[in-house]
Amino acid sequence: MKSLDKLISLFRRFPGVGPKQAERFAIYTVKAAEGEVEDLVEALRAVKSLVKYCAECWNYSEGGRCSVCSDTARDRSIICVVEHPQDVAAIEKTKTFAGVYHVLHGAISPTEGITPGAIKLKELSDRVKASNGILKELIIATNPDAEGEAMAIYLTRLLSKYVPKITRIAYGVPLGGDIDYLDEITLGYALKGRVKI
Amino acid sequence: MKSLDKLISLFRRFPGVGPKQAERFAIYTVKAAEGEVEDLVEALRAVKSLVKYCAECWNYSEGGRCSVCSDTARDRSIICVVEHPQDVAAIEKTKTFAGVYHVLHGAISPTEGITPGAIKLKELSDRVKASNGILKELIIATNPDAEGEAMAIYLTRLLSKYVPKITRIAYGVPLGGDIDYLDEITLGYALKGRVKI
Repeated sequence: MKSLDKLISLFRRFPGVGPKQAERFAIYTVKAAEGEVEDLVEALRAVKSLVKYCAECWNYSEGGRCSVCSDTARDRSIICVVEHPQDVAAIEKTKTFAGVYHVLHGAISPTEGITPGAIKLKELSDRVKASNGILKELIIATNPDAEGEAMAIYLTRLLSKYVPKITRIAYGVPLGGDIDYLDEITLGYALKGRVKI
Repeated sequence: MKSLDKLISLFRRFPGVGPKQAERFAIYTVKAAEGEVEDLVEALRAVKSLVKYCAECWNYSEGGRCSVCSDTARDRSIICVVEHPQDVAAIEKTKTFAGVYHVLHGAISPTEGITPGAIKLKELSDRVKASNGILKELIIATNPDAEGEAMAIYLTRLLSKYVPKITRIAYGVPLGGDIDYLDEITLGYALKGRVKI
């Protein structure tokens, strides 16, 4: 069936979707109520037409500025740098951060061909340089993997002249984890970073 | 963001999609080219409007009859009964079956509230009864799980009067599997069903 095959091939492009799951999604569409498919069509189009970059932090936003940047109560002296918009949502859920964000939309990766120009790096650099003494701290919350670590080092070298303090989120044992299942590097960091109780 | 949250909630309804994956799908949509989202919209609508049941075997089809049922070279003396349209595709890929199919669209399951009336069971029964001696064999290829097994027994009781032979697909060791990782019931079946080499 041509129409079903076409839909399966489009679902295959979704991140992490294999042939079986794409097939299940297509069958789900066939079985779904007419209204449900139209809801999906409308939501897809709405996202495509409404969601843009926030002019300040490059997170996704429906207006010119995202909800964080347009909140005057947020502390503009701290910028938390993350790789992806999902990371902002994750940090917001912790309710422990009152500053603002900068979304890079990736990390430099020579193996994946992600160059400095492909991410919002110049935008961060410009923003930091234009902060005129307001900015006190840059928290680097890129992923704790090879690219994220390299990004943290790169950003520190690039921006330490322009901001009084650059910090990195703490490494340690994740809550609920089993210590004997943890890799030795994380455990090593957890020991080195121990705090008095 | 309202539009993004709405799209995420709709992706959550897709089979096997959790909150994280739904979020990734929504972000994928934001990043996708305008044309790609419109292709998806078009494919969704095409599937919804074109894909119907095959009038003979209840598989999905774009015309009145599916490609198998409209193929005059297929052997109408053997009907292979499956639970889902995906099972037809899987069996077709083996290129070992020249008969026709009957898609039940599920298996009776008291725990999941799937009654005999909720699946294409009466349609199978009517089809078998109306076969006027053409039908020689019914292969039951329902899933090898509790519901599929019960379905096989149920169908045998219901239809053995109307068809000369009712068979069940063979149980045994799957190729590429490790014998010592296999459950003892499957392995027992593989031993009982051994064939001369």
